[in-house]
Order: sequence, then structure tokens, then C-alpha cells
Amino acid sequence: MKLAFDEARKGTDTWLNPKVGAVIVKDSQVLASGHHQTFGHEHAEINTLNNLKNISMAKGATIFVTLEPCSHFGKTPPCVQRIVEVGLKKVVIGSLDPNPLVSGHGVKYLKDHGIEVENLNIKTDLNQAYMFSFNNHRPLVTLKYAMTLDGKINKFSNERSLISNSIAYDDAQDLRSNNQAVLIGENTFKTDNPQLTVRNKKMKFPPVRIVLVRDVNSVDLSKRIFENQAKIWFLSETKAHRNLPDNVEVFVGDWNVKNILNLLNEKKIQALLVEGGSKIQSEFAQAGMIDHLVIYLAPMIFGNGLGACNGQNQQIKTIEFQKPKYKFLGDNIRISTWRKK
Amino acid sequence: MKLAFDEARKGTDTWLNPKVGAVIVKDSQVLASGHHQTFGHEHAEINTLNNLKNISMAKGATIFVTLEPCSHFGKTPPCVQRIVEVGLKKVVIGSLDPNPLVSGHGVKYLKDHGIEVENLNIKTDLNQAYMFSFNNHRPLVTLKYAMTLDGKINKFSNERSLISNSIAYDDAQDLRSNNQAVLIGENTFKTDNPQLTVRNKKMKFPPVRIVLVRDVNSVDLSKRIFENQAKIWFLSETKAHRNLPDNVEVFVGDWNVKNILNLLNEKKIQALLVEGGSKIQSEFAQAGMIDHLVIYLAPMIFGNGLGACNGQNQQIKTIEFQKPKYKFLGDNIRISTWRKK
Repeated sequence: MKLAFDEARKGTDTWLNPKVGAVIVKDSQVLASGHHQTFGHEHAEINTLNNLKNISMAKGATIFVTLEPCSHFGKTPPCVQRIVEVGLKKVVIGSLDPNPLVSGHGVKYLKDHGIEVENLNIKTDLNQAYMFSFNNHRPLVTLKYAMTLDGKINKFSNERSLISNSIAYDDAQDLRSNNQAVLIGENTFKTDNPQLTVRNKKMKFPPVRIVLVRDVNSVDLSKRIFENQAKIWFLSETKAHRNLPDNVEVFVGDWNVKNILNLLNEKKIQALLVEGGSKIQSEFAQAGMIDHLVIYLAPMIFGNGLGACNGQNQQIKTIEFQKPKYKFLGDNIRISTWRKK
Repeated sequence: MKLAFDEARKGTDTWLNPKVGAVIVKDSQVLASGHHQTFGHEHAEINTLNNLKNISMAKGATIFVTLEPCSHFGKTPPCVQRIVEVGLKKVVIGSLDPNPLVSGHGVKYLKDHGIEVENLNIKTDLNQAYMFSFNNHRPLVTLKYAMTLDGKINKFSNERSLISNSIAYDDAQDLRSNNQAVLIGENTFKTDNPQLTVRNKKMKFPPVRIVLVRDVNSVDLSKRIFENQAKIWFLSETKAHRNLPDNVEVFVGDWNVKNILNLLNEKKIQALLVEGGSKIQSEFAQAGMIDHLVIYLAPMIFGNGLGACNGQNQQIKTIEFQKPKYKFLGDNIRISTWRKK
């Protein structure tokens, strides 16, 4: 099973799918291994079967697969059907798939077809956001900001202040690449004018760039976000009465935190990165919707300015986090922590 | 000289005096060592001479002393006079004393009396604040606060929020004991109602407790600060028209940062700890008067509330600090750093 997990980690473009690895064993010999590589393409089980020298070798063998094999027609036919067809004798799974389309159905199908199934119930953070989103019916929310030692993320609300160093900047790009969507508010959109792309990595499925705006019709189309073809979703209070680029979608509604997360859940987004500014960060904090926190602390003090969270709410609720992890990035400190359970 | 520095560090109640150690050597043999222990009592040189089995042993010997011997009548007679009297042949000093009453005069007196003097010019942080205050004509300013991960030091301006854990609290007491004065603003005085004492250590010379107030006549005398006999200085805009406890002194003036530091310099305070709140911290930051920063970072988020620095100033000046040091205190992180030179 360890080999299967090593395989699983090789998947880089699985997008909304979990990372899954598999190994086929007979008479204590590893016959083949494989993993799910790209969203929409073959699952780990199928790739592993295809890696056998001869498909007839599957007969009577055991497959170790990190996650319950699927039992539904999605982008590809169900894996359990193929497992039965090729005559595998036993399936050992890392855990059940939390996706209700699969969960338990895969195991049941296999057992109904006379295949022995063992569930090792392994806890892993391999597909943390995937597991989280199915269990909580909303994406896992990471909040990220660069902050001075006096808790400021900007000097002024209408001008961008450089706070983090270039190593922290690169680290933040990696963080972005591990999420399926990044979200910013209107003020950050106007002031920082970010591209919200992943610059240090080629991605088949870059994160969706989500911008909260009051009126999508007032958006300045010369902003840098439009220089890139990755998806853009505007969450607007008003309908669009104008032509927008092809990669733009507009969702109209009352975009409080609850409604945002409901939309993203419907859209199957499992991991959301909130990238500011102050007001949105405060709203996510007040809604209790921060699961993971990443802070780049820069050794400077402004003495005044815009705090990391700055909201209107008068009923302040504390969110407690676990003992943080920290790491130096040059003279910046990266602090990360998970919400207390 | 290393032995002399080890001796120097043994001084615990030197208060406004520097920590100084000395060792007497003849024919490669250490004859005696000693240090300055208590403000107002014998200096290191005298204690070391007194530690000789017989004072006649000093004749022809060399004394290693970490700081230039004094040449003026202070609380005790000048050390250089005694050095000459007992017939020491050579004086090796760690560095000159920055105190203008002594600086160079001690060395000159010794040379004028035929004693060989060698200055090793050793840089040390042993008497950092002492050195700093004479070189800069103001106390060394340390700013300390406990802060959430979103940069807040309080939920509300009129109610105290517990942020740091008990280990951080104890550490902050140690920090207090290393300063000669602690300063708070009126809002912190009213809201936190602190004693501002050093609870974990018996001190002959505890830090002076300084409180900035608009009108000293409106101060509530039932506050906890009055439960302790250590000195209290009120910096008030108005004169006192009431009887105040014996340990209280009132200074009347316009107490901006510059004026506060000038007063403390006149009062020979070498190390000041600023302990909040938001407004005073902001004022010290805006005045560029933070030399050392100690932050206790607690793993929680308020999402709103009072920031570490919260001022009126619109012209925000950044103070840059060196790469910080950090240390876990339970689940809190102690971050400390010095201003960039």
C-alpha cells in the first residue's frame, strides 16, 4: 500500500479528482503500478492494469488501491466493472471514497461480484481538500496574507504596499497552485491589480480566479487579470449588460460568505484560497470559515495602516488555531496553522 | 578578560550602573576576582581588591576590568585613586566608559600616575542599554505586545482580551525586569488595570511604572498599580491638585514621544519598555523610536478589533527590522528583533 501511495503522489493535474495510486501483486511479486495523472483521463486502477505486460496476468491477483474504486460513469467508465472483467481476486483499499456517487457503492459492487475487499481505513492528507469538501459540503478555506509585525497588510486602502520578499512571493505562488480557486475582494482587485495566476508552474487546470464586485458592469477591462486565459468568475450584485471576454463567467447574488461557499460547493471547488483584502478576510473570520491560515510575516512596522482583518462586525468571535508551524523565507517568517478541531 | 566578563554578569541589582567584573593577575596566577553587585555599593575593582588575601598582593599586579575604572565621586569614591594607592602596575580594560563623567578621564588619571593601560575595545551586549543611552542621549526603547495572528491586541478598546498564554506572560515579566521603566497609556491603564510589577523576581530596584494621563486629578486611586510600593510616575497635562501616595511623582508637560524620551534621559533611565496600548505604540512607531521589538504571537484570529498600532497619523513611515529571532512558548511564538542600523 505504501507503494500505491507513492504512486498516487505522482499525479499533478488531477484537478477536481483525488490523487490515487495502485499496485497489482501476485505471489508476493509486484506486477504493475500506476496512478491517476490527469483529470478526465484514466483512473489509477485502469492505468495500472494497462501497465501489466499481459492483461491475463490480472487473473487471481490482488490490487492495492489508495481509494475505493469508482462505480459510476463519470468522464471514464466505472473501474469496478473493469476489475471484475479482468479477474482480479482481491481489492485492498486505503479508504472509502467520500464522494457520495462512489462511497460504499464501489465496495458493494465488488463484493456482489465475488471479489474479496479489504479496507485499511488509512488516514492521510494526500487528498485533504477532496475529503474535506465531501465531508463538509463546502471547500476547504485557506486564508493567506503578508503582514508586518504590527499586523498591517497595507499602509493605505488605495495603494499597494510591498511587504513580503521574493521568496515569500514564490511560496505564495505554490500555495495558489494547490487550490482550485482564489478569491479577492473589489478593493484588492482595484488597488493591487493582480493577475492571480500561477507564474512558476505550467498548469493544465489553473485555479479559477474569483473576484467579488458590487457591479460587474463597472469593472475596468484593462485590468491585468484579463491578460491571462484562466477562468475568471465575477460574483456580482448586478447582471452583466456588456460583452465580457470568453473566459469570464458572472454569478449574480448576495455574496456573503455562506452564499459564496454554497456556490463553490455546487461548482465542486474543493479548495479555496482567500487572498484579501482586509474586509473579506474579516468576513471569513467572522463567519468562522477559515480552516487553514498561511501568513508571511515581514520584519517591519508601519505604525498605522490597514490591518489583516478589518470589518464592521461588532460581535467578535475568536477562531482558535493549532500550534503553528514556521519557516524562515529569507528574513520573512512563514507561519501556517490549522484550525483547532 | 573572559573571567572578568563572567564576573560582570553576576551583578543583578546594578540598576543605573553598568555590570562590571574584574580579575587581578600576577605571574600568570589569578589572585582575586569580583564584580559590581548593587547600585550604590562598591564597584567591581574595589570588590576585587577586597577579595585579595592581603592588599599588599596588589603591588605590581595587573587588573583586568571589563569597563574603564571611574574617576569621579559618585555614590562611592573614584576607583582609579584606589588602583594607584594599592600599587597595581597595569590596567587592562574591556572598553571606555561612555558616561561623559568617566570616559577617557579614568584612563588619563591612571596614565598620569604612571600606570600602564591597555584598552581591548571589546564589543559586548553586556551593558547594551547603558552604552546605548549615553551614545544616543535617550533610553533604549523596547516595544512589547501580545498579538493574534490577524494583528490584534484587543477585541474592544474598553475591555481586556486574554491573548498570550502563561509561559509568554512569565517571559514578559522577565522582559520587564530587564528595563528600568515601563510605560503605558491612559486607555491601557483604565482597561487592563495592570500592576506593572515584576512578579517572578525580587528586585531591589524594580522598574519605574510610568503612566501617561491627560489629567492626573481624574486618576482612580483604587487601581491595582497603587497596591505596590515601586515608583509611579504620572506624565500628565495638568498639575496635581490632590494628595497622592508617597511613591507617586507627577510630571506636567506636553507628553509627545520626544518629550517623554527627553525626560527619561534627564532621569537617567537607560532602558524603557513600552507596554501599550495601540495608540502609544503607534506614536512610538511614527516617531521612529522603537529599537527592540518583542511580540508574543498567539494562534488565534479575532477577525476584527484593535490593532497592535492604531494611530491618527496619515504619513506612515516604515521602520525596518533585522531578521527576527523566534522561540515557541507553548503554542505562542515569541518573535524578537532589533531595528536595522
